[in-house]
Amino acid sequence: MRQILILGAGRSASSLIHYLITHADQQEWRVTVADKDAAQARRMVQEGPEVATGIMLDATDPDTRAALIGQHDLVISMLPAFMHLDVLQDCLRLGKHVITPSYVPDALWAMNGDFQAKDLIVLNEMGLDPGVDHMSAMRILDRIRAEGGRMEAFESHCGGLVAPESDDNPWGYKFSWNPRNVILAGQGGAAKYIREGQVKYIPYHRLFQETVQIEVPGLGAFDAYANRDSLKYRKAYGLDDIPTLLRGTLRKAGYCAAWDAFVQLGCTDDGFAMELDDDATYTDFIDAFLPHVAGRDTQSVMAATLGIDEHGEVMRRMDWLGLFDRKPIGATGLTPAATLQRLLEEKWKLGTDDKDLVVMWHRFRYSIDGQHQELQASLAVVGQDQTHTAMARTVGLPIAMACKLVLNGKVDQRGVLLPLAPAIYNPILDELEHHGILFQEEEVEV
Amino acid sequence: MRQILILGAGRSASSLIHYLITHADQQEWRVTVADKDAAQARRMVQEGPEVATGIMLDATDPDTRAALIGQHDLVISMLPAFMHLDVLQDCLRLGKHVITPSYVPDALWAMNGDFQAKDLIVLNEMGLDPGVDHMSAMRILDRIRAEGGRMEAFESHCGGLVAPESDDNPWGYKFSWNPRNVILAGQGGAAKYIREGQVKYIPYHRLFQETVQIEVPGLGAFDAYANRDSLKYRKAYGLDDIPTLLRGTLRKAGYCAAWDAFVQLGCTDDGFAMELDDDATYTDFIDAFLPHVAGRDTQSVMAATLGIDEHGEVMRRMDWLGLFDRKPIGATGLTPAATLQRLLEEKWKLGTDDKDLVVMWHRFRYSIDGQHQELQASLAVVGQDQTHTAMARTVGLPIAMACKLVLNGKVDQRGVLLPLAPAIYNPILDELEHHGILFQEEEVEV
Repeated sequence: MRQILILGAGRSASSLIHYLITHADQQEWRVTVADKDAAQARRMVQEGPEVATGIMLDATDPDTRAALIGQHDLVISMLPAFMHLDVLQDCLRLGKHVITPSYVPDALWAMNGDFQAKDLIVLNEMGLDPGVDHMSAMRILDRIRAEGGRMEAFESHCGGLVAPESDDNPWGYKFSWNPRNVILAGQGGAAKYIREGQVKYIPYHRLFQETVQIEVPGLGAFDAYANRDSLKYRKAYGLDDIPTLLRGTLRKAGYCAAWDAFVQLGCTDDGFAMELDDDATYTDFIDAFLPHVAGRDTQSVMAATLGIDEHGEVMRRMDWLGLFDRKPIGATGLTPAATLQRLLEEKWKLGTDDKDLVVMWHRFRYSIDGQHQELQASLAVVGQDQTHTAMARTVGLPIAMACKLVLNGKVDQRGVLLPLAPAIYNPILDELEHHGILFQEEEVEV
Repeated sequence: MRQILILGAGRSASSLIHYLITHADQQEWRVTVADKDAAQARRMVQEGPEVATGIMLDATDPDTRAALIGQHDLVISMLPAFMHLDVLQDCLRLGKHVITPSYVPDALWAMNGDFQAKDLIVLNEMGLDPGVDHMSAMRILDRIRAEGGRMEAFESHCGGLVAPESDDNPWGYKFSWNPRNVILAGQGGAAKYIREGQVKYIPYHRLFQETVQIEVPGLGAFDAYANRDSLKYRKAYGLDDIPTLLRGTLRKAGYCAAWDAFVQLGCTDDGFAMELDDDATYTDFIDAFLPHVAGRDTQSVMAATLGIDEHGEVMRRMDWLGLFDRKPIGATGLTPAATLQRLLEEKWKLGTDDKDLVVMWHRFRYSIDGQHQELQASLAVVGQDQTHTAMARTVGLPIAMACKLVLNGKVDQRGVLLPLAPAIYNPILDELEHHGILFQEEEVEV
């Protein structure tokens, strides 16, 4: 029996745990799910009491955490990013393989030699984005290069959205993951990418203006806004000399122009507590970011300040949120971002019958034998239900499949890894296809 | 003989030191000027070798600093703000009065009782802004209140600019103080003020758009952009219930709209090192913030991106900076803000024959006996020469005069003080008038 430890049993771990439980007997696995919430940990393993155990763990307690890690063969860390490094240090010391969906922290690269010396695997960025994006891009990039193609442009966008059948609001959006991250998306520094050989920077206040419009077959039109740092993928993907590389986040067409209105007003700032009256409304919240104009209502001042049509698409989305209905906020001392989140969590709630949607889209432009070629690859996954959402499946299943590869000795590399090698991406992408998670490829006329 | 210690002898200390030296015999003062640059310290005292000494001091060395402070009766700290608290703690321990032009750090308020218990004065915000602004506003506010007036609005703006006779560029601006602070002005959080009873917030990316236009008698039209926090002046000035309070920074009319172009592009970001070629030009610098548009020049893409007239006033100012002349930057690895500063230090240099200008402008709106009244007060000071600039005089002379008040026992209050009381502002404002630093008041028809 191989002992697998999952640290952190949030809702995004559902499909991961389901896979491990349903494959446990065949693979000779036993699974421990540890979470700070004991009831949540037990709930997550209830379909497999013979093969899986849910326990309480305070992952910030070094002794308990190390003792538990010591009893297992492989650790899957679903903990928040800031807790990863502690877990990774335990795994190095105790000689355990680790898999995480998180970005590689800088400090981890420095430990690469130590992990290699102990013959250990630290497989990171193994979820959806990062994860499936790496694997699907690298499979096609490697194929193009094997055929003698020379890459000229690579664009890749991904979004966690709402399924068309559950899309019943003018934003085309509901929360299928951490709302706070959606509100703060794009903050923390200029976005960087490269276009026609020139490095380009987009400050936060233009991020939702300088979007790319794309069409995903069967799903319609989307906006993509640039992710923080596309430049680092040049090295990771072996595209050091590529003239154009852009990674972004997808939203339904029209979302970004409307979200930009919040950005322009300053409503997404998380840096200060607002001074509003106890009985302040969301209309007062908006007013606080507008110049004072005597005798004019919030809508008209907002539209004039932003230079947009008072009866246009952006204002229609604002109106649908109830911003001008004088609805009380019901809390004080919040930051602007937290105030906005409070409203949106109510308006953009994924209902019990709603299904979410994950969309990923790549565009490869390359030349081969002097001919310019374009290939588009797209993925669309609709959630099965409230538990096995598209987000939980596309994050969790690749991790579970990677766990199988590692424990069955199919990964030869050691040290700090990303899923960029065929030995990892081929079996996982093939198996994901059996779960309905597959890319459609399309050659496009140049 | 009363021993005065000046810590930090930058150029802004010239008029302060000159005053202390020229009043030394009459006031029975002896002055020590300490700076990390011994030559600079000696240069600053050369007009009064009998009464003043210039010495080298590493102010970060606690033992040397404390020993020096211990030998004096009063300390004037002109050190950068982050070093103030160490000096203040020394002064508390060693029982010395202190005067500074810096804002009161939060940690200092906690030491108020300790200073009072030792019968000590810590007089802060004693320069121009903060300093002269406090004194001139409080004198008028106290007068209005004494006459039974009820304050309805207070606006106050100040700027360090270039004198009309030396104003020969379309920005109407040259550096008369720290260029870096000019580039980064307004960053670090939304500006807060109150208008008609509503607290208002302006995010950085709208700060140079939501300006106030004012007219200063004899000097023409100015823009004012809001300072970071106007709200705290409600309490300081006894204006807790005032419906409108705004403090801002003055620039010549047209400057803010042009500066806003840099803000919108992202050129004032100090958060990352740019990836530019070794031979990159300032035109490449601008291009890096613009979307790629094949076959169009930087000017036209910039104007289109910002939604401004390619041949209008903003682009004329950009053109004058030589941004489109493919002039090499001559340095790599700079942040956007540092790149911009490199260019502007060259273009906005205050020449040897140039004179600077300090402008301050207050507007008081109040009601008295049911009548609405408005009073405007303005100050304009032109520099005498390169040494005794308007900035050095308006910062340094109030500090020197406060030093005289404290040493002559004219300040009864103890503890952490701002120059808000008549015992401080009356004698200093009166004496400043003898130095040509005086406000013009004007009743305005409402």
